[in-house]
Amino acid sequence: MHELTPELTAPVAGFRWAAVRAGIKKNGNPDLAVVVAEKPCVAAAFFTSNRVKAAPVLLGAKRVKSGKLQAVLVNAGCANACTGAPGLRAAGLATAALAAELGVNEKLVLPSSTGVIGVLLPHEKITASVPQLVEALSSRSIEAFARAIMTTDRWPKVARRITRQGFTVLGIAKGAGMIHPNFATTLAYVVTDAPLGTTFARQVLKRCATATFECISVDGDTSTNDTIALLASGAKPGKKLLGDDAASRAFERALREVLHDLSESIVADGEGAEHVVRIEVTGAKSEKDAKRAALRVATSSLVKAAIHGKDPNWGRILSSLGTSGAAFNEARVRLWFDDVLVVNKGLVVAGDWEPAAHAVMTKPKFTIRADLGAGRGKAHYLTCDLGHEYVRINADYRS
Amino acid sequence: MHELTPELTAPVAGFRWAAVRAGIKKNGNPDLAVVVAEKPCVAAAFFTSNRVKAAPVLLGAKRVKSGKLQAVLVNAGCANACTGAPGLRAAGLATAALAAELGVNEKLVLPSSTGVIGVLLPHEKITASVPQLVEALSSRSIEAFARAIMTTDRWPKVARRITRQGFTVLGIAKGAGMIHPNFATTLAYVVTDAPLGTTFARQVLKRCATATFECISVDGDTSTNDTIALLASGAKPGKKLLGDDAASRAFERALREVLHDLSESIVADGEGAEHVVRIEVTGAKSEKDAKRAALRVATSSLVKAAIHGKDPNWGRILSSLGTSGAAFNEARVRLWFDDVLVVNKGLVVAGDWEPAAHAVMTKPKFTIRADLGAGRGKAHYLTCDLGHEYVRINADYRS
Repeated sequence: MHELTPELTAPVAGFRWAAVRAGIKKNGNPDLAVVVAEKPCVAAAFFTSNRVKAAPVLLGAKRVKSGKLQAVLVNAGCANACTGAPGLRAAGLATAALAAELGVNEKLVLPSSTGVIGVLLPHEKITASVPQLVEALSSRSIEAFARAIMTTDRWPKVARRITRQGFTVLGIAKGAGMIHPNFATTLAYVVTDAPLGTTFARQVLKRCATATFECISVDGDTSTNDTIALLASGAKPGKKLLGDDAASRAFERALREVLHDLSESIVADGEGAEHVVRIEVTGAKSEKDAKRAALRVATSSLVKAAIHGKDPNWGRILSSLGTSGAAFNEARVRLWFDDVLVVNKGLVVAGDWEPAAHAVMTKPKFTIRADLGAGRGKAHYLTCDLGHEYVRINADYRS
Repeated sequence: MHELTPELTAPVAGFRWAAVRAGIKKNGNPDLAVVVAEKPCVAAAFFTSNRVKAAPVLLGAKRVKSGKLQAVLVNAGCANACTGAPGLRAAGLATAALAAELGVNEKLVLPSSTGVIGVLLPHEKITASVPQLVEALSSRSIEAFARAIMTTDRWPKVARRITRQGFTVLGIAKGAGMIHPNFATTLAYVVTDAPLGTTFARQVLKRCATATFECISVDGDTSTNDTIALLASGAKPGKKLLGDDAASRAFERALREVLHDLSESIVADGEGAEHVVRIEVTGAKSEKDAKRAALRVATSSLVKAAIHGKDPNWGRILSSLGTSGAAFNEARVRLWFDDVLVVNKGLVVAGDWEPAAHAVMTKPKFTIRADLGAGRGKAHYLTCDLGHEYVRINADYRS
């Protein structure tokens, strides 16, 4: 399911990749990765909404404003968050070293970090590794890149689509949430050979990320380092994609599918998680109500523990909906586990529905849907179960 | 620590108590309890803010509007929530049976239920048990009442204060949160022999509950059945307490202390919980900001798991604050574990602070305080750790 096939990791025109061991991760695994474009790319990026932002996020947000990037430098093992001015300086020095070695403008290098918070980026280790990193650049090192950015991910996360017009969209991510003993960072990088317009690149990334990455919740926490970036090399010739033609629409579909695959893979990789559950709310008074209701259920510890126990505990779900702030009348609520109706008009259905609902919950993927009967607003979140592994990993004394 | 001494459970003038086995709890333990006053009492009550409200809450809220109550009928083992019109009818029949047996107006009986959601109250069982219940009434059966309303509580929860003027305030509660495999209900009943004014009774209960019960969070979920009620018999003569004299102020202090003791006992009884932690936020831009920041930290699974592991993981706390919606500048934040300063001006302090912070976290009770450096708003929540027992109990298949 999570294997990287040769097709998935085939080169994308205009990009080269590399990963090395810089000695940042304690286990000695590769921990420094780079993707470099032949020429400056049209680029867009979005970052964590956490008020506490890591140094690479602060620096990166400033740099991507130009709409141009040529390289992304990612390290795992150190988040460089809550590190103040020295952290910003370290991120600047690391990207400057790469820029010098590549002979590109340092403002075209996006930094990204994931790992322990409160530890200053060891920029000397990165600077020392940069020559080897640049030496290793290859169009075929996509898997190496994907593996180096992992923290305690169980598998690398790569997704790919090719549009009808022949443009390739390749996404690489690391997750998230439950899996990291110190922090819960999501990083995602998408490259394409399509010739994107700058405004379209920003808009399409925003739309597709909102529909996918912003609809996953593994433990309700948002990291200081979350980053999603899109680089378009334009290496495959064609009419510029501005959003107003079939090629643009095909690109958007492909991008959304890539981000969907990645976000689902991230949720599935929640430590201890055995189920990916789509929490779907329909019939809400507004989309905002639907979102808050779905988020409340998706982040309820009681609901997530019930999912772990394969317990179709509809009462917990109704109660979560009731505390979400969404407006509805209990007497109009309906609730399904996949297509098994369990609550109708606010009351549990008659008959022996429980074995069927329980059977749904034994599946690795299923949907819990609540219709609030209050309007036409709808929304969904992907979530996972809360199991013993979560407690074991997150309660471990940091050392 | 949690033993019921004879002083704690001594009679309160004007009230009698009883508890029997009505066969509602599966384990056959006492599950039906009543407190009855000699005469109609000045009374106030507040209920869950959950949009999904149980039948006894709907019925009770209507009845207490008069400001008078003479009895409270509580059952454990069945929440009578999400049971629609039949649930309301069942709650009405149960209280009517008690009222008839006592010879009081049924509108003076407050119903309360806790237990499995979605199951109709077996009112015939209650009706059949009422004669025995009334027969058993005694001023000395406070402990029996406290035990009968327990679900999976590990100990009964009783607190008591006597004011300088000689008025007694006695509170009995059940908790909550993590401990119930199906629902997380808090029920609390306070009786006093003080002669309270009706308006003062409502105001003082609201203020004291806001300062105590509304500041605890065991898993962020609010039940469909939460109820807190105050009954004042006025059996001890004196000038009516209207809120404007020393006796009123002493009463308010006593009530707040009783509710504080009960709420702390509820958090300590969170299943699997080994620590009661006061999450304190100071220096917020507003009290509202302080509240949302404290609540966010108090309900973060990552923070609660770190507390379980005695890990002074300040990064998770800063990150939680950052996602709370409270306005602050990271560079002004300070953070303490009790009196051990760990973060100063947004940066981790120099030196080997970790053993001292870890030592604080081995204590059964401690405080995590964050000063946001943004103003004078402050707030706190009591929370507990997230341990394996929580998952074990809440993931068990309901059966």
